[in-house]
Amino acid sequence: MYRTHTCGELRAAHVGQTVTLAGWVQRVRKLGGMTFVDLRDRYGITQLAVDDKTSAEIRSVVEKLGREFVVRAQGKVVERASKNIKIPTGDVEINLTSLNVLNASDTPPFTIEDESDGGEELRAKYRYLDLRRNPVKNALILRHRVAQEARKYLDAQDFLEIETPFLIKSTPEGARDFVVPSRVHHGEFYALPQSPQTFKQLLMVAGYDRYFQIVRCFRDEDLRADRQPEFTQIDCEMAFVERQDILDTFGGLMKHLFKIILDVTFNDVPCMTYADAIRDYGCDKPDLRFDMKIKELTKQVQGKNFAVFDSAAYVGGTCAEGCADYTRKQLDELTEWVKRPQIGAKGLVYIRWGADGIKSSIDKFYTPEELQKIAGEFGAKQGDLILILAGAKKITLSGLCELRLEMGNRLGLRKRGKFAPLWVIDFPLLEWDDETQRFYAMHHPFTSPQPEDIPMFMDGGKEELEQVRANAYDFVVNGVELGGGSIRIFDSKIQQQMFKVLGFTPEEASYRFGFLTNAFKFGAPPHGGIAFGFDRLCAMFGGSDSIRDYIAFPKNNAACDVMIDAPSRIDDLQLKELAIEVATEKE
Amino acid sequence: MYRTHTCGELRAAHVGQTVTLAGWVQRVRKLGGMTFVDLRDRYGITQLAVDDKTSAEIRSVVEKLGREFVVRAQGKVVERASKNIKIPTGDVEINLTSLNVLNASDTPPFTIEDESDGGEELRAKYRYLDLRRNPVKNALILRHRVAQEARKYLDAQDFLEIETPFLIKSTPEGARDFVVPSRVHHGEFYALPQSPQTFKQLLMVAGYDRYFQIVRCFRDEDLRADRQPEFTQIDCEMAFVERQDILDTFGGLMKHLFKIILDVTFNDVPCMTYADAIRDYGCDKPDLRFDMKIKELTKQVQGKNFAVFDSAAYVGGTCAEGCADYTRKQLDELTEWVKRPQIGAKGLVYIRWGADGIKSSIDKFYTPEELQKIAGEFGAKQGDLILILAGAKKITLSGLCELRLEMGNRLGLRKRGKFAPLWVIDFPLLEWDDETQRFYAMHHPFTSPQPEDIPMFMDGGKEELEQVRANAYDFVVNGVELGGGSIRIFDSKIQQQMFKVLGFTPEEASYRFGFLTNAFKFGAPPHGGIAFGFDRLCAMFGGSDSIRDYIAFPKNNAACDVMIDAPSRIDDLQLKELAIEVATEKE
Repeated sequence: MYRTHTCGELRAAHVGQTVTLAGWVQRVRKLGGMTFVDLRDRYGITQLAVDDKTSAEIRSVVEKLGREFVVRAQGKVVERASKNIKIPTGDVEINLTSLNVLNASDTPPFTIEDESDGGEELRAKYRYLDLRRNPVKNALILRHRVAQEARKYLDAQDFLEIETPFLIKSTPEGARDFVVPSRVHHGEFYALPQSPQTFKQLLMVAGYDRYFQIVRCFRDEDLRADRQPEFTQIDCEMAFVERQDILDTFGGLMKHLFKIILDVTFNDVPCMTYADAIRDYGCDKPDLRFDMKIKELTKQVQGKNFAVFDSAAYVGGTCAEGCADYTRKQLDELTEWVKRPQIGAKGLVYIRWGADGIKSSIDKFYTPEELQKIAGEFGAKQGDLILILAGAKKITLSGLCELRLEMGNRLGLRKRGKFAPLWVIDFPLLEWDDETQRFYAMHHPFTSPQPEDIPMFMDGGKEELEQVRANAYDFVVNGVELGGGSIRIFDSKIQQQMFKVLGFTPEEASYRFGFLTNAFKFGAPPHGGIAFGFDRLCAMFGGSDSIRDYIAFPKNNAACDVMIDAPSRIDDLQLKELAIEVATEKE
Repeated sequence: MYRTHTCGELRAAHVGQTVTLAGWVQRVRKLGGMTFVDLRDRYGITQLAVDDKTSAEIRSVVEKLGREFVVRAQGKVVERASKNIKIPTGDVEINLTSLNVLNASDTPPFTIEDESDGGEELRAKYRYLDLRRNPVKNALILRHRVAQEARKYLDAQDFLEIETPFLIKSTPEGARDFVVPSRVHHGEFYALPQSPQTFKQLLMVAGYDRYFQIVRCFRDEDLRADRQPEFTQIDCEMAFVERQDILDTFGGLMKHLFKIILDVTFNDVPCMTYADAIRDYGCDKPDLRFDMKIKELTKQVQGKNFAVFDSAAYVGGTCAEGCADYTRKQLDELTEWVKRPQIGAKGLVYIRWGADGIKSSIDKFYTPEELQKIAGEFGAKQGDLILILAGAKKITLSGLCELRLEMGNRLGLRKRGKFAPLWVIDFPLLEWDDETQRFYAMHHPFTSPQPEDIPMFMDGGKEELEQVRANAYDFVVNGVELGGGSIRIFDSKIQQQMFKVLGFTPEEASYRFGFLTNAFKFGAPPHGGIAFGFDRLCAMFGGSDSIRDYIAFPKNNAACDVMIDAPSRIDDLQLKELAIEVATEKE
């Protein structure tokens, strides 16, 4: 062993002991006749002290030290003359009796400090150096902790962690699969799992009744910011359960993790239907840290000759408390903000209730009494500002959702360290796609309809099918979807109907999912499950909006690992063995 | 929740309670006016009892029950008239008050019993049914347990579980990589990791100092029996350590797992050099549950005009205690056994020390005194049988290894439940391949030479290089290699020399491993690690020679999953998007 202690370990109680440390040179400081070396490892920083009394040999080694040199230092723990209360080892320093350079270092391309001077790309290329920085290190330690605690909790609840295969069959429905050519079976391919969905369902058929896995999944999507082609899920499934059992069990898991990781306590997680979420917050993952509910005003405001409202399918608004003093300039800026393509509103109507009474941008069309009545809808009071959007229903609601979040940010209502968990339930089962003229499963093709909607699902036409609710649920915290799942279909007749509704021929359904529908013939129990986005969960615990620092070796937005240079070309011999050729021109 | 208790839970103490169970019908037995249903779930079997007093409705449901039907049963726990001491729930049964079929089942294609009537192929196709059988279920529960305990132990020792990427760069050296075409980067490929080797080394460079991961790895090899294209490792790495630290730490892990999983205690794990293992046991993974050491006799037996021995590069044998009474027939049969192509010996010489003195198949060439002296080499006594092979050194030693194991089996010396762990150390660093006229790394290209052999490695010619010992180690139990690893090179000059010795041009080395050698320039600490074959470890704990039942969804010897039919053809659209074509004819 190269060391007796770590660099985060020594305290006043160690004074007088002879110790050996090993680590990286964080910095070398000269102060009069003294030289101080900050030695860093995963556990902390310890100060090495060199003065006139230190041997010439050691002093000459210290002279040559550079940043990030790896050294082994032996010496006596002594009390510091001037203590550093900022670090746990700040009471002591080491009087060196020997110092060896284990490995030198070139000057790193950026500083290894909490706030580095390195740009994102440079840090990605030298990820192994970026990983030395405290914020990244702490993120990975947090991730480790969350994984261990999740496992312990689920293990204690009789869940079995069962590994499912990575080389499976391509059955794309939704996202694209990554595929792996088979060398042995010419022209055939494996696929990497988008999730272990079908395998966990087979485990339920096999009687394993409580399954989980912290598992890598793969989706070959066009990457949006903060999506990764490979990502990790806490994947879970239970048999002999109904929806409430799942919500209780995994609400319990989340409660436990928030408590043990962040010491945040929350009560039972409330439920909200999808319809209510859309109506009150304009989206299916509301941030409940603050109120500012959206109110529909369509009926109330129409018929007053204001063409913008009269022609709109939907008019609605939200009330920003205490914002009545927004200036013209601020309101114009907010109007530009909602008109950006990301929001897509045509304009912004405001009603402000100032000290001088109610004023609005639609005074021409509405009497003060009418405006007062609208304000009443929001329970507004003097000092408040009501912001109103109008247009097609879906886009206007989603615009109001964004506007609400933006005002929440400006008002400081979305506090870090505050957590508002929520189950969103009763999603629609199906989404109609006009382009392909077919239904798609909103969750996936194995999600069960709500029990009371099953007759409608089995016999209904397009209109009824659009109304069928899924027995599905999302776990949402602070406007972020951390997990989602459903009670599954376990009756092969309902599953066949689902495939039919999704437009699969019986042959297609059998080719893609025959093993699952077959399995359902041999005694499938009722079952359901959930998957949590583990990268996202860790980022939430770490208080970050970005998942990238919670992944040791993430890929960039072009799905590349720039450190190792992947993907890259492979040998012709490899291609030949795989019996595949690269097409000379891409479509 | 569909149940109040599991089928493994009820005891005499529950008598009088009303309970609800859910599970699968194991069997239905009629006994006079009574009908008994064995209801099974993951936790056990509980007997449901139906008699004249049971409602007609329930009795008619019972009439229609078949094997593997999924039912929900409600009733009162009563004491059984005739108890079954073979099962933990054998004191009680349930007097039914309601019974619902949750799902019917077709007749399963094989019996769901400990000893099934289904062949291997059929069980593979219906793996979800095979998984219901106790031996498979217990194997997966054991696997879960081993994984949790390994994690707990390593976590408690400050190891961090850090996930490494699956979509990496192809750098084949040894086995073939599975590759994944990139849709975004035309003509480029990711590779699936054969192990996280380079990433765990980068984590050491990054300062994470104690890393582990229970992780899937991939090798596109021509499958031998009991190899899987995807397999799981307990992958570990430590910084600031020397070999003994690794042996202590992971010997400790193994000791802990054997104790907590099997309640088997062993002392510190002994070390044996590769050279000693080959000399005494004929292979690098000796089964130390029994002695029967191999002795070389070459010099002693040559020069007595026995051409077979005189022309052999190596003559050696082993002594089978108490086998002097082997008949002519048995000896002939053993001779045929060693002549099989798997062993490849030309013949078998025996010396038996019976009640009538020493007799041998080479009496013509050796005096009784000479034979006595040979017997003395083995410490043989009356009643023993000495078996001797001669020929080329390598093949003869490996033949003797197999012969020793075979005799160990016949003599009952390889006892189940007995465990003889061992570290094998000081492997050769390099292997010369005559065909390609180059050296290959025996372990991998990152393995460090033994410190005292480094000068020879840096400056030596072919002859010296062949003698360089690796700072590597294997963990062997009962003749099975459960893990292996090495102290790594952390000096970029030594790493460059390794690439040179392996015949890489500087350009190749830089293209393949440039990120690692670059990383070594920025303060790489001394480090080393190990990986345990997790599937194999679980099979060892389960007392099985085959890993397949310790994997939930294994592939067959042709690397196929016959249940889901993978690999398989994919859509032309998928191929087009990936810009690859299947070659019309395979090489």
